[in-house]
Amino acid sequence: MNGYLMEADGTVTATTTDAVKQNISAGSFFWLDLIDLDAEGSDLLLNTFHFHPLAVEDAEHFGQRPKLDDYDDFFYLVVHGAQGDGGGTVEVHCFYSEKFLVTVERGQCSQFDDVRERASRRRQQGARSNIMLLYRIIDALIDSYFPVLAALDEQIDTLEDEILAQPTEAQLGTLFTMKRSLVGLRKVITPQRDIFANLAASDSALPGMTPESERYFRDLYDHLIRISDLVDSYRDLLTGAMDTHLSTVSNRLNLVMKQLTIIATIFLPLSFITGFFGQNFGVMISHITGWAAFVFLGIGLQILVAIGLLVLFRRRSWL
Amino acid sequence: MNGYLMEADGTVTATTTDAVKQNISAGSFFWLDLIDLDAEGSDLLLNTFHFHPLAVEDAEHFGQRPKLDDYDDFFYLVVHGAQGDGGGTVEVHCFYSEKFLVTVERGQCSQFDDVRERASRRRQQGARSNIMLLYRIIDALIDSYFPVLAALDEQIDTLEDEILAQPTEAQLGTLFTMKRSLVGLRKVITPQRDIFANLAASDSALPGMTPESERYFRDLYDHLIRISDLVDSYRDLLTGAMDTHLSTVSNRLNLVMKQLTIIATIFLPLSFITGFFGQNFGVMISHITGWAAFVFLGIGLQILVAIGLLVLFRRRSWL
Amino acid sequence: MNGYLMEADGTVTATTTDAVKQNISAGSFFWLDLIDLDAEGSDLLLNTFHFHPLAVEDAEHFGQRPKLDDYDDFFYLVVHGAQGDGGGTVEVHCFYSEKFLVTVERGQCSQFDDVRERASRRRQQGARSNIMLLYRIIDALIDSYFPVLAALDEQIDTLEDEILAQPTEAQLGTLFTMKRSLVGLRKVITPQRDIFANLAASDSALPGMTPESERYFRDLYDHLIRISDLVDSYRDLLTGAMDTHLSTVSNRLNLVMKQLTIIATIFLPLSFITGFFGQNFGVMISHITGWAAFVFLGIGLQILVAIGLLVLFRRRSWL
Amino acid sequence: MNGYLMEADGTVTATTTDAVKQNISAGSFFWLDLIDLDAEGSDLLLNTFHFHPLAVEDAEHFGQRPKLDDYDDFFYLVVHGAQGDGGGTVEVHCFYSEKFLVTVERGQCSQFDDVRERASRRRQQGARSNIMLLYRIIDALIDSYFPVLAALDEQIDTLEDEILAQPTEAQLGTLFTMKRSLVGLRKVITPQRDIFANLAASDSALPGMTPESERYFRDLYDHLIRISDLVDSYRDLLTGAMDTHLSTVSNRLNLVMKQLTIIATIFLPLSFITGFFGQNFGVMISHITGWAAFVFLGIGLQILVAIGLLVLFRRRSWL
Amino acid sequence: MNGYLMEADGTVTATTTDAVKQNISAGSFFWLDLIDLDAEGSDLLLNTFHFHPLAVEDAEHFGQRPKLDDYDDFFYLVVHGAQGDGGGTVEVHCFYSEKFLVTVERGQCSQFDDVRERASRRRQQGARSNIMLLYRIIDALIDSYFPVLAALDEQIDTLEDEILAQPTEAQLGTLFTMKRSLVGLRKVITPQRDIFANLAASDSALPGMTPESERYFRDLYDHLIRISDLVDSYRDLLTGAMDTHLSTVSNRLNLVMKQLTIIATIFLPLSFITGFFGQNFGVMISHITGWAAFVFLGIGLQILVAIGLLVLFRRRSWL
Repeated sequence: MNGYLMEADGTVTATTTDAVKQNISAGSFFWLDLIDLDAEGSDLLLNTFHFHPLAVEDAEHFGQRPKLDDYDDFFYLVVHGAQGDGGGTVEVHCFYSEKFLVTVERGQCSQFDDVRERASRRRQQGARSNIMLLYRIIDALIDSYFPVLAALDEQIDTLEDEILAQPTEAQLGTLFTMKRSLVGLRKVITPQRDIFANLAASDSALPGMTPESERYFRDLYDHLIRISDLVDSYRDLLTGAMDTHLSTVSNRLNLVMKQLTIIATIFLPLSFITGFFGQNFGVMISHITGWAAFVFLGIGLQILVAIGLLVLFRRRSWL
Repeated sequence: MNGYLMEADGTVTATTTDAVKQNISAGSFFWLDLIDLDAEGSDLLLNTFHFHPLAVEDAEHFGQRPKLDDYDDFFYLVVHGAQGDGGGTVEVHCFYSEKFLVTVERGQCSQFDDVRERASRRRQQGARSNIMLLYRIIDALIDSYFPVLAALDEQIDTLEDEILAQPTEAQLGTLFTMKRSLVGLRKVITPQRDIFANLAASDSALPGMTPESERYFRDLYDHLIRISDLVDSYRDLLTGAMDTHLSTVSNRLNLVMKQLTIIATIFLPLSFITGFFGQNFGVMISHITGWAAFVFLGIGLQILVAIGLLVLFRRRSWL
Repeated sequence: MNGYLMEADGTVTATTTDAVKQNISAGSFFWLDLIDLDAEGSDLLLNTFHFHPLAVEDAEHFGQRPKLDDYDDFFYLVVHGAQGDGGGTVEVHCFYSEKFLVTVERGQCSQFDDVRERASRRRQQGARSNIMLLYRIIDALIDSYFPVLAALDEQIDTLEDEILAQPTEAQLGTLFTMKRSLVGLRKVITPQRDIFANLAASDSALPGMTPESERYFRDLYDHLIRISDLVDSYRDLLTGAMDTHLSTVSNRLNLVMKQLTIIATIFLPLSFITGFFGQNFGVMISHITGWAAFVFLGIGLQILVAIGLLVLFRRRSWL
Repeated sequence: MNGYLMEADGTVTATTTDAVKQNISAGSFFWLDLIDLDAEGSDLLLNTFHFHPLAVEDAEHFGQRPKLDDYDDFFYLVVHGAQGDGGGTVEVHCFYSEKFLVTVERGQCSQFDDVRERASRRRQQGARSNIMLLYRIIDALIDSYFPVLAALDEQIDTLEDEILAQPTEAQLGTLFTMKRSLVGLRKVITPQRDIFANLAASDSALPGMTPESERYFRDLYDHLIRISDLVDSYRDLLTGAMDTHLSTVSNRLNLVMKQLTIIATIFLPLSFITGFFGQNFGVMISHITGWAAFVFLGIGLQILVAIGLLVLFRRRSWL
Repeated sequence: MNGYLMEADGTVTATTTDAVKQNISAGSFFWLDLIDLDAEGSDLLLNTFHFHPLAVEDAEHFGQRPKLDDYDDFFYLVVHGAQGDGGGTVEVHCFYSEKFLVTVERGQCSQFDDVRERASRRRQQGARSNIMLLYRIIDALIDSYFPVLAALDEQIDTLEDEILAQPTEAQLGTLFTMKRSLVGLRKVITPQRDIFANLAASDSALPGMTPESERYFRDLYDHLIRISDLVDSYRDLLTGAMDTHLSTVSNRLNLVMKQLTIIATIFLPLSFITGFFGQNFGVMISHITGWAAFVFLGIGLQILVAIGLLVLFRRRSWL
């Protein structure tokens, strides 16, 4: 069993089952932060905390949708955050009551180190709001989306410029990957937003919730709306970028074909003329022999046709 | 009449009309699981159970929308699941009251064997919650969607890679088939989700529903939301894949046309020059006879033109 | 005035104004089924039945949106069905009160013959529920959509296969026609669905409505939801088919262009070589005369170039 | 100040400030119909009627969204209609209380002449419902959309046929113009519909509204829903037409390219053969001299190649 | 600390902390307009006004979503306007209570100069409605969108014409930029609209709100709906313009390819014929020697083929 156990006074101690039991029996608020729930951890949740089997089962299987379930004696909350390196989402399961906060995370959330350190310091200084600790954990997770979205914003902008400069197939792959990660983000942001929308309105208040702390939770909701708006607008922009790609490629194709057509339209007639005078008709060979014939028919005619075609192209404003 | 009849104590016996009548008169809860409703079965439902004709008519015709109808003396519930081999959906019609559970399925639901076995064992051990039996049946059906969706997810990913590598027409057919099956899934998932959303909120509680079992039904709702979210996001990704296909093909076309244009732009002028010197003008034949003429006009000019065009292409960064 | 008049006891008599007046004064329920409202019919509705002018005006002008209006002393209901031969919709206007049911239809609804016959038989046998008569009429109209939709389903499937096999312009026309008829269906199905959704919930119950008959009307609502779901999913599939058509054509174009490019890339250089040796330079004609020159330059060089290009194509996996 | 003043008894008199003041002091209902609000008109509204400055300001600036504002002592209503010649929308501002109806219109609404004439006649005959006068004015405006929409419907149909027959760029311009006018229609229809939806439900009834006249206003709502449905479905069809255009052009392109490819695939190899036998190799000229050589190599080979290619094309079903 | 301080009587004085403190202790309403919140300003808000830290933190970080937060002793309102030169949005944070209005803006809002001047004059004349001052500030911000939208409207129109005249890649860039700025506008307009929608309905009225001033705020809501409608319709038009671009380019490509195909279809067969008679078969050279052969085979055949092809093209209506 791996993790951190912060006691009511802010001291962080070992996360043994005994230490947890002691804290429970002491009855003062503590924060147990478990990393990668193992068998011992599951056992602790089920048999020491006596959490509902459904909640423990969910905590054991990551990949849950963000949700807030009220289990009478505790609240079960699933929150997602963005991974620092932009690769995916971080998923944290919280069991919260007025006596404890248990968080279960997959891997180690880098966002929590900072929260733990500050919370420890605050508690040692006497500031011991439990609900604000929960707020700070969720806040850290939600704020982790902003740098990821800012990076996406920039990426879309760059990609759009690149597409207009030179559309390639690699860009299509990037567009699809970005769309996929936006779809993924949307899937965790929307339910999260709805949870915090209802939190303010609902009467099933989290224990320890005060009008003051509610303000902070409403601020979280505000951030989630902003994130959700951003995700929607990036989605729109990606669709636009895909359309731009298609249109740009079509445009390029048009230009290439115009060039081919110009070349063919000039040289096919000219080649026909040279072919004509390359025919082996006896009369032609024996009669068209002088300099005049060569200059007028062999050279002049060609130049005339070429000039005529160029004039035609200019008129159609193709050149 | 084909199926299974599980009595209150968990024993599974023959599904004869008499056995059913006995169980009804005994008054203890039993589960009748009918496979492919035949005339005898219909008769049983109508005349022994005295179910409403509308409900029996629906049960006789598969292809119903998921729904929950309250017929005063029993509930009529239609639930869909995914077929194990991904080929389509499984449709189960349930008649549920506090005295019995009657399920009608087309073909044999492989998901039910496991449920029946466990339920039988539990009942023999004394655990006899009727509503939890219903829960387990629905749970088995709903959980059958997850492997199908996971397979779809992988398929979309593979397809996207294939499209970017080499777009073919077969992929378009696959995309359309996948879209069609998603449209089909959506058609059964959405109403199912709505049923379980209302179940929690409604006052017309299923008989035997306790706060504890309600938690489990709310968990079903949770799963259905997740499935519905997945279906929506795959739909989005399929549209994206279709766009990628079109754009990739356009891009390839552009490359092919560029190559054609380069070839034509180089060789049409060169052919014109060879054609020019192949003309049968007497003066040309009789005057352009020396080595110098051949080297300068016949070879040098050609090389010059070819080099000139290559330089031009490089400048336009076409090569 | 053309139509059918069914009296309370199920006998069908002539539809004269006098017969109607007699029935009204008799005070027992009757069904007047008018086909193509003429001046006499309008007069009957206005001056004998004393219907509200707005309702009669609507009944005179077909092309109404499905709706249910409560005119205090009667209900005015507009319902649409599908024409048997799939060509369009059938529109029926019903005036319903506890004393009568008046239906006005354009042309003769083939769906009604069957309803009338059965209703007549039932009434003669003593089963005289007025609200169930209304239900059966609406049921006949709504069920008429299913074969039309099944035909559409099959048509989309066939079309999709045809598009993948060989995209043509005729398919585009068919796609557009199908989209148009779906748009038309949607326009009448959605309001119809909303009417029956509200019917169950509303307190302005139709006269004669019992909990039992309400069940049947809720079943109508169920059917309408199913139809509406189908229409939406076909719409989705049509859009998909249009995209497939465009992508398939693009793909074909790509293949055609590849072939053209291969042909041109092989034969333009070869033609250049033959052109080269067809030039009339004196030195060339007088020096390149032996068999060796012909075999090496005239034949060998050509084969070499051709083989080189084929190898190149194979490497790019074009052949 | 230009317009019409209809007094309570139906007589239409001059629209001078004095006449208006007289009517106000008389206290009987009158209709003042102002055309193009000038300074005198504004002054009348502000200082004689004592309308709220915000309402008068709105009336002075056309381009308002349809709305219904309750200014305690009068209702301010903005309604839009379609111009008879299909060119745009007509905007009418109404100030309505139980004592008067003031309408302000830009230009002269051709729809009003008829309304005024009939209202005048009715009033002279003693029928003096104020609310029905308002109804008739709005009805005239709303019904003006139907011919415009019918024209659009026909235009879409014709356009679709033209696109399938021969796609041109002019059609794209027409499509865009139609889309723009639909977007414009939608912008005025949707809020108008919402006004009349609320009118029925709201408790802030217009003065003089009776259950009977409410029926008429509900009929207006009905018409607006129908118009709104039509606008939405035309929008759908226009998008479909745009897709059809793109697909048709792509298809034509494909056909053109096929033809080019066939021509090139036949004549490039043939030209290569003629080029081959046009080479000036001494051995070739001196040895290939007989009739047999000419017939077999010069003619037979060509025909063979041509036939071979045609067979190939037929097999690929290109011809 | 930079800004303007308007006292209750309309005089504008220096914005020092002392002056603010004096005004607070005086207890009469004043308007403090801060430009670019610096450390001193933040300190003033936190420690002199005692605003909630969350509100001050938001005010320090621009880029907030429009919102209205009720902090018991004051309201915190974020409003966005358009920049005069169309480049982006202006963001203003307002702290409003019955005792003061504090506005914080980034850079200097050009819209405020006019508001300040008029408010000062009005106050000196004795008109001192606090809520109307807030209204005028918001009104100035919201009205700043209209010229920006009018410019967009014209730009879309021009662009559409340009695309139909000659589609270029630069237009695609412009389209994308416009789409992006519309997405940005939408992101600030929608929440702003929702704030003012609720303002009218809510019971948490702003201090000083009267039925009269509420009318003005409802007018703001009206404007925001109009702006929001415009943004949506422009979005639609931009999508349409993108489609038109793609279709136009495809159409042009089709025309170019038609020309190429015509040229190739005419000259490839002709070149083949000249090539044929340029072959060096002895029998051909020695037998086809007369004038007749030259005229019929060398010239007549060519003209015949050319005419034949032209007739063919005309029949297919290609020329």
